Amino acid sequence: MDAISVIRTKRDRGRLSDEQIDWVIDAYTRGAVADEQMSALAMAILLNGMDRAEIARWTAAMIASGERMDFSALSRPTADKHSTGGVGDKITLPLAPLVAACGAAVPQLSGRGLGHTGGTLDKLEAIPGWRASLSGAEMMAVLGEVGAVVCAAGDGLAPADKKLYALRDVTGTVESIPLIASSIMSKKIAEGTGSLVLDVKVGSGAFMKSLDDARELAATMVGLGTDHGVRTVALLTDMSVPLGLTAGNALEVRESVEVLAGGGPADVVELTLALAREMLAAAGLPDADPAKALADGSAMDVWRRMIRAQGGDPDAPLPVARETHTVLAPASGTLTRLDAYAVGVAAWRLGAGRARKEDSVQPGAGVVLHAKPGDPVQAGTPLLTLHTDTPEKFASAEEALTDAFTVSPAGTSFTPGPLLLDRIA
Amino acid sequence: MDAISVIRTKRDRGRLSDEQIDWVIDAYTRGAVADEQMSALAMAILLNGMDRAEIARWTAAMIASGERMDFSALSRPTADKHSTGGVGDKITLPLAPLVAACGAAVPQLSGRGLGHTGGTLDKLEAIPGWRASLSGAEMMAVLGEVGAVVCAAGDGLAPADKKLYALRDVTGTVESIPLIASSIMSKKIAEGTGSLVLDVKVGSGAFMKSLDDARELAATMVGLGTDHGVRTVALLTDMSVPLGLTAGNALEVRESVEVLAGGGPADVVELTLALAREMLAAAGLPDADPAKALADGSAMDVWRRMIRAQGGDPDAPLPVARETHTVLAPASGTLTRLDAYAVGVAAWRLGAGRARKEDSVQPGAGVVLHAKPGDPVQAGTPLLTLHTDTPEKFASAEEALTDAFTVSPAGTSFTPGPLLLDRIA
Repeated sequence: MDAISVIRTKRDRGRLSDEQIDWVIDAYTRGAVADEQMSALAMAILLNGMDRAEIARWTAAMIASGERMDFSALSRPTADKHSTGGVGDKITLPLAPLVAACGAAVPQLSGRGLGHTGGTLDKLEAIPGWRASLSGAEMMAVLGEVGAVVCAAGDGLAPADKKLYALRDVTGTVESIPLIASSIMSKKIAEGTGSLVLDVKVGSGAFMKSLDDARELAATMVGLGTDHGVRTVALLTDMSVPLGLTAGNALEVRESVEVLAGGGPADVVELTLALAREMLAAAGLPDADPAKALADGSAMDVWRRMIRAQGGDPDAPLPVARETHTVLAPASGTLTRLDAYAVGVAAWRLGAGRARKEDSVQPGAGVVLHAKPGDPVQAGTPLLTLHTDTPEKFASAEEALTDAFTVSPAGTSFTPGPLLLDRIA
Repeated sequence: MDAISVIRTKRDRGRLSDEQIDWVIDAYTRGAVADEQMSALAMAILLNGMDRAEIARWTAAMIASGERMDFSALSRPTADKHSTGGVGDKITLPLAPLVAACGAAVPQLSGRGLGHTGGTLDKLEAIPGWRASLSGAEMMAVLGEVGAVVCAAGDGLAPADKKLYALRDVTGTVESIPLIASSIMSKKIAEGTGSLVLDVKVGSGAFMKSLDDARELAATMVGLGTDHGVRTVALLTDMSVPLGLTAGNALEVRESVEVLAGGGPADVVELTLALAREMLAAAGLPDADPAKALADGSAMDVWRRMIRAQGGDPDAPLPVARETHTVLAPASGTLTRLDAYAVGVAAWRLGAGRARKEDSVQPGAGVVLHAKPGDPVQAGTPLLTLHTDTPEKFASAEEALTDAFTVSPAGTSFTPGPLLLDRIA
């Protein structure tokens, strides 16, 4: 077995055998297959595809490259959620404590943002004192005591995926359904959750731009989860418009706390409740009432304990950016389009995201929206506010927002599209 | 400009712009684009192709990555030959002194063998004392005094190609017509020859297995040469059968000297003369008579001076392998097939070639053929002799030769195919 013959098989549109997949994933993890060989293979996979059996074996090999966690000692059923990433997608923040308040245990291993999509850990790190890195024992302790934990995945979980993910990021080989599905599911299956709800984003601000691609990705992941004994459901949700009214780390924490306090933007509340119901049903708790847990403060209570358990102060003031700049509505009428990707890129350029893994993010940077599609706007009044510590970035953020929105004449008939697009189980 | 956007352009079947090509080749040469990024791009090029203008720009960028040589100070016109590589292809050895004997200057920058095809420098290094590495000044001196020089290309010539060639070799991205054509032609154009004859091999022992692929490669290279002011002609020649009766380093030197002495196998003589005539015509010497220069000993005279000028002793006994093993004809009849690839792999396994760049080769190792297709054979008499210093390799060499030949019943009507298949100018 050698790397070149594996690469050639896929390059020439062949099927990778189980032996080839097991060998190449193990050898890559050990460093016996070089990065430049794996990137050529990843490009061949991206262009020539893998069938369902190949994806299943690839996923299993990545799981086998490291440890598996085990939550069977917990008294509660476990439920996890994964989003494929979007703009303003702070849903994990209210969702994890909400589902825990309803009786499930939520072990949420999360990542950092890269490019125009934010990362859950970056958002929580905006809270003074909060830390993302926990040992396995600490994680289990928080999960047992609070019912929800959001932390960084340890190095022992699917190390092949960790290495491959970093490689794909710099070699233009991210946008492959087999590679995305196996990457997400290897981590989630190794993590050991009993049930999993996938939030597969569709639209300009998501990796999947079309509903067909998103359906294919969702069905692939649901199949992989089910095959490994994880009860898996996917919701396809709209990401053509940012979620909520904020994109940026501290800004999104503030909006999440509003949701936990019973308020917050309607779309964030709707998606949080929809995902909570799916998680609770998959965890065997179909009668739990997440709307009540938001209303009665029990979700907020879990949130405060969860933040404190990881060193954070839920009452500390959140960081704010040193400078703001307001983008005014160019005309009066109805806002009929606000492009998620453009807002994500603007927030990123303002300092909310990172261009390279080793970059740091500004906790206060980001974009606040003063209107969403369907809302009336008045010429010369604020449409967006840009926040940053580095005001020299305002120009490039504004450039990203050129053509990001459409104001149609007042009286234009317009109904925003639905947030929930499909469900795959 | 960044590597990922260049990779994505080609991945998504776009055209690379001139600016993208110039940037990526320069940045790769400088190390600013990583090997894993270039290998992903190479795989995308292999699978999605490049058009003629892209290939031309890619070639020009590789030429611009280093120095260019200049032979305009020579009193003779320059002519060079390049073979795409085959089994038993020792043609450069008799050809370079022959063309020099007819009045052209032959600056032959050659390579080492990798895989089943031999390398001209490995062959000449079988001659005691001969050295492949010359400084630019030494090379010009030999060329001026002897008229022909065969040596290793200096590090300054098309360094981008040198780096990319080594990368392609380990990443399954060799078999791409745009990448093969630009690799060959960037070196040859940078070398500064006034005219160039390409020997594009077709058949089992060549990179190009089909005549159509070989024609496309030849036409691409002729176009590139012509665009850069190099008079370029390509011959398409058969490589389904080994050339001559030997494959291996010292074995091929011996056969080449036989040709220079006026003897040697008919196919080697035929191809040497055909290429010599093309080179002389392209160099503006259409009236030269290479057959005469073989017959009257003037080519042999140049050979002896050329070997001596690089430290070699043309009269020293050539190395011989310590062990030989004979493969007998399994039946009587007519040999109707002898597979070039199988013979090449056998010679390689016996020690004539290398698996990795850093390996050394055995000067005496290789295969001697006792019959060629069309010849009668007698059951139990020698068909092939295997030569090696490492007799433990006989078994794997014999394994490579399973199904390598066909002996048909005596009286079977059989005419070997032509050696010269096409000419593209």
